[in-house]
Order: sequence, then C-alpha cells, then structure tokens
Amino acid sequence: MFITLEGPDGSGKTRQIHPLADFLTEQGYEVFCGREPGDTFIGEQIRQVLMDHQNKGMHPRTETLLFCAARAQLVEEIIRPHLAQGHVVLLDRYADSTLAYQGYGHQNDLGLIRKLLDFATGNLWPDLTILLDIKPEVGLRRRQEGGGEWNRMDAYQLQYHERVRNGYLKMVAAEPQRWRVVNADQSPDVVQSELRDLLLSYLSNLS
Amino acid sequence: MFITLEGPDGSGKTRQIHPLADFLTEQGYEVFCGREPGDTFIGEQIRQVLMDHQNKGMHPRTETLLFCAARAQLVEEIIRPHLAQGHVVLLDRYADSTLAYQGYGHQNDLGLIRKLLDFATGNLWPDLTILLDIKPEVGLRRRQEGGGEWNRMDAYQLQYHERVRNGYLKMVAAEPQRWRVVNADQSPDVVQSELRDLLLSYLSNLS
Repeated sequence: MFITLEGPDGSGKTRQIHPLADFLTEQGYEVFCGREPGDTFIGEQIRQVLMDHQNKGMHPRTETLLFCAARAQLVEEIIRPHLAQGHVVLLDRYADSTLAYQGYGHQNDLGLIRKLLDFATGNLWPDLTILLDIKPEVGLRRRQEGGGEWNRMDAYQLQYHERVRNGYLKMVAAEPQRWRVVNADQSPDVVQSELRDLLLSYLSNLS
Repeated sequence: MFITLEGPDGSGKTRQIHPLADFLTEQGYEVFCGREPGDTFIGEQIRQVLMDHQNKGMHPRTETLLFCAARAQLVEEIIRPHLAQGHVVLLDRYADSTLAYQGYGHQNDLGLIRKLLDFATGNLWPDLTILLDIKPEVGLRRRQEGGGEWNRMDAYQLQYHERVRNGYLKMVAAEPQRWRVVNADQSPDVVQSELRDLLLSYLSNLS
C-alpha cells in the first residue's frame, strides 16, 4: 500500500505525516514514513543542491531532473523493498509534486514530464494520494510565520504558487479514484482527525 | 558552431581537447572549451555526487537523471549564450555520452533516453561530433596506468564498456553526416594532428 501526501508549501504535510504514521503503526500496520527529495544518502546530497540559496540560477529543467534523480534512488533503494514486504509506505511528496511544480508551475510540457516521471519511478505510482489543499497566500504566510524553513523554492512569485494549486486540483479531477482532498485551512487537530478517518476507511475497505 | 568530443574512458579526450582549443584560437576562432558534467557552479556539485565512491549504490536511472540535470544547466547557462555570440563551443562529452553509457551501456530504452535528452538540452544537439575510438581494454589499461583519476564509473565491468563502444559505433553509422571517427590507439601527437586537420577542413568548408 503506497500512500502519498501532496499539497502546496505551508499546507502542513510535514507536520501531519508523522502523527499519521504513528497512528497507522498503532493500528497494527508496518509503516515506512519518508520525505521527498531525500531519505537516501544520495537523495540528501541532491536535496542540498536543490535547496541551497547559492544555486538561485538553477534552470527549471535542471530542477525537474534533480527531483527525478532523487526519486529514482528512493524508489529502488527504499520504496520497492518496503512494498515487497507488504508495508505501508507513506511519503511526504512524490511524483505528483513534479507535475504540480515543474509541469503546471513552470509550464513545461505535461506529457513529457509524465514520461520523465515514468522513467524515474520505473512506472511506480501511489495507490492513494491525499491533497492537503490550501490557498497559496495562506500557505506562504504560514511558512513565513515559522511553519518551516524558508528555501529557494518559496521565493517564486505568488502567481507560480497559484498555478501549482490549480494543477493539483486538475489532477484530482482527472483521477478521482486515486485522490482524496482534505481542507488544510483548519486547525492541525481537525486536519489530523480527517486524515485518520480517511485512511482507516480506505484501508479497512481493502481488507 | 557546436563541436563535441566523445569516446570511451581512456580514449584521451581530456588530454586532446585543450591543445585543440588553443589551436582553434590561434586560427582566429573565439572558443569556449568545457567538460561534462560540470563547468557550472551547480554542475560541479552534481559532478561530485556522480563521481563519489561513497555513492556506489547509485541506481542507473539516478545516474542518468543526474547527468541530464548537469547538462540542462550547462546548456542554458553557458552553451546557448556562447553560440548566440557566434563562438565555437568545444565540449568534452555531451548528450551522446548518455546514450552510449546509460542507453547502450546500462541497456535502458534508447527512445526514452533520447526524449530525456531532448528535454534536458531543449533539443540542442551538436553540429559535429568526433568519436575518439579505442578498444575498452586498451582505454581502461591507460587509465589504470595513470591517464586520469579512477572513479566510480570505471569500476563497471569490461562487458559494460564494450556495450558503450559498440553503442558509439552504432550512433556513427546512424548519423554519418554529424560524426567523424579518429583512431585513439595512436600516439597523442598523431591523434592531435588528425583532430586539427579534421576540424580545419570542416570549418573551412563552412565559410
């Protein structure tokens, strides 16, 4: 069972995912919980290149390819082995982030980005993806107020972040059987509670 | 005018390219001479990840994507601006290396690799590519005897390097108008002299 959390920056994914993983563990599931990009020795090195303010001259296509490189390593080194053992894999961002940010945000060819992602992931897509939906101006304000570290990617303009959010909503509409939407503009406890209900009902329907 | 040198490791590209660039400069050309991956601040960081022995668990698809990322940055930051000014750009390896190493060597889908390369380069391919051809066992012995630093990629098996060489020869056969072949299993002075003759005749035919 491969589950991903997606959403604009400041939507609270990082804050929500760990209590969610703990909850699933308490329910008796074996859970691997990780974040993108990173979580492998090689992926963390790539993450540093991506997030470093000194690299502000990075071209959007370079960015896309670095995210894909970190993801390829994560898939082979971590995700596939866990799935093969029947574990739940819970990820903070995955391939849909590249479609949202590099495809919709930077307005690259979506079909080509999807091909890149099929290559990078060896065609591995999640079983379930939850969008933590929030308006970009609310999400960015949250981050500025201390919800997380401010990085190179936050500095893009608001218009870009609006394209990202609209991209997510288009993906939900195109593939409703895989996606669920949770309103992230609520108190963290309410969001966590909705996430738990959603996952429990999804997982119990499977068994 | 965009010219690239290709060839298996140990074929002497790095040794040959600088005197070749100096020669073209003496002939009155404005020359930018660079190497792949690298030559940009971001590309050098990616090069370090690629070459580090600690990263020996790197998946072939990760490797491919990292080379493509460094190349995307090089194209936009350096190659296109030089070409726009009418300079000769002379590169030690380019996109054909990815086809040879990651496509033919690692036996990935060549059509998909070509799509990746079109994405990474924004469809920029060289006007002229020279293959420094040498048998893998000769090239690898040269490197072990001190022709260059021994890195993570040299450690692949001989069979892999034979697939790489055969891949280059197939590319030459498929696109003879772009490729020229120089026998690299000769003394460095003879190779340099053949390279100079070849480039002078090519460039003078253009003007």
